[in-house]
Amino acid sequence: MCMAVIIHDVAEMQTTASRLRSAGKKIGVVPTMGFLHEGHLSLIRIARQRADAVITTIFVNPTQFGPAEDFSRYPRDFERDSALASGAGSDYIFAPETHAMYPEGFATFIDVGRLTTALEGKSRPGHFRGVATIVAKLFHLTIPHVAVFGQKDAQQVVVVRQMVRDLHFDVDLIVGPIVREPDGLAMSSRNTYLTKDQRKEAPVLHRSLTMAAELIRKGERSCEKVIRSMSHLISSASSGVIDYISIADGATLEEMEFCADGRPTLISLAVRFGSTRLIDNTTITI
Amino acid sequence: MCMAVIIHDVAEMQTTASRLRSAGKKIGVVPTMGFLHEGHLSLIRIARQRADAVITTIFVNPTQFGPAEDFSRYPRDFERDSALASGAGSDYIFAPETHAMYPEGFATFIDVGRLTTALEGKSRPGHFRGVATIVAKLFHLTIPHVAVFGQKDAQQVVVVRQMVRDLHFDVDLIVGPIVREPDGLAMSSRNTYLTKDQRKEAPVLHRSLTMAAELIRKGERSCEKVIRSMSHLISSASSGVIDYISIADGATLEEMEFCADGRPTLISLAVRFGSTRLIDNTTITI
Repeated sequence: MCMAVIIHDVAEMQTTASRLRSAGKKIGVVPTMGFLHEGHLSLIRIARQRADAVITTIFVNPTQFGPAEDFSRYPRDFERDSALASGAGSDYIFAPETHAMYPEGFATFIDVGRLTTALEGKSRPGHFRGVATIVAKLFHLTIPHVAVFGQKDAQQVVVVRQMVRDLHFDVDLIVGPIVREPDGLAMSSRNTYLTKDQRKEAPVLHRSLTMAAELIRKGERSCEKVIRSMSHLISSASSGVIDYISIADGATLEEMEFCADGRPTLISLAVRFGSTRLIDNTTITI
Repeated sequence: MCMAVIIHDVAEMQTTASRLRSAGKKIGVVPTMGFLHEGHLSLIRIARQRADAVITTIFVNPTQFGPAEDFSRYPRDFERDSALASGAGSDYIFAPETHAMYPEGFATFIDVGRLTTALEGKSRPGHFRGVATIVAKLFHLTIPHVAVFGQKDAQQVVVVRQMVRDLHFDVDLIVGPIVREPDGLAMSSRNTYLTKDQRKEAPVLHRSLTMAAELIRKGERSCEKVIRSMSHLISSASSGVIDYISIADGATLEEMEFCADGRPTLISLAVRFGSTRLIDNTTITI
């Protein structure tokens, strides 16, 4: 295995990317907050197939965390991440310092409008402003032809897609499927926060999504009823406290009253286990 | 004279710019709202000296106009603009349609923070949000190495510079000096709105700026006193209604109490002649 080139400096990243472009290389980027797991690695492998030069960015972005959120305790392990990203096929790892990305006097933010106030945005005000801003910054520094995001953060994909379209970023977005543990729990860096008991309970999130999709496929059309069943399952089978369960138009994120009207439908949820907030989702079209 | 290639289509502009880049050409862009005058042409000539391929964009950007402002009556003359831009050395003219730049569902805006609420931003809320957003869009579509802006819109330069820095746009900003009529009036597409009498009075704006710079150079240190003298001159010599007169730090746009403390100092103003709002400025460092 060849170790990826590690770049910390912002200007060096941009110069390197620019040089790769001039040499006719196709650049693929995988933006991450590090503490990589199989989900991230699957995205790096997708980028590997699509690009000549794969850049994995590792940056725990402070502007997408709320003041009461887990920015400071978010798990970090750069050595391990470098080895894993290299093993999955990353040519470059871009890991800038916080003060280089947000120097004193930093003032510019990108707001993607209505899409950012639904779902996660309702529970995490300002989150997607931070996401959109850091993604734009990383795009300018890595100048990718292709960027790979995970479907686990479904709303992030929708928000970034809207920004790319509205601001004419010349980037192809590729979305990698959710990677799950054998018991169905969606992989997440935050899973490490879970106690042993919480970890045992957490797969109920995926079970509730599977059940919802099944109910709809079998003919249930009331989103309210489906959500009630999911809520009941989660509450009865775990200590999880539901933040939201949503059945929404997969493109506009508008809540749907009737499931399965031909539109891609995003069933998503956020549930707290103690202070750990997990999200998961599935998409169906009927 | 060789006529510039005219591009209306957004995708065609991006493909063309991308092709120029791949061919190793240095791209210079001059963003304008059209109705070109000698001020714009001087910027195109600067770009001509700095770049292999010069793109002049002509787009009256609705998002930088307030609801009560002059978007619909803003002067337009595409034929004349094309000839003038070509004559000044533009290789390409990019003139997109409004609905292509702001299609249905458009939702993304760039906010450059505190800088945008001073001066023009105070009188024109939302103006710089529109400016920053359209400039980012045009940068993505024309992929310039160099972008040339006019010092006439002094705050625009400061705002765009902050955005370029914060979002890591790989673009060199060049600022062209204000071009004036023989009697000192700063060239502006809006000068065509002036009645004959207003046109005669309007050079008082430049005279007031020159006087302010002179007062400061001669030792006056109270910004308040300088502003009072400017205000007196404008009011006594014209029918202009002062929107604001400001003496501010040229970089942060913070109002200064004492002039000439070694910082570049921006003396700027906005004055209405009837329904026509004119701006002008000068910068001094003492």
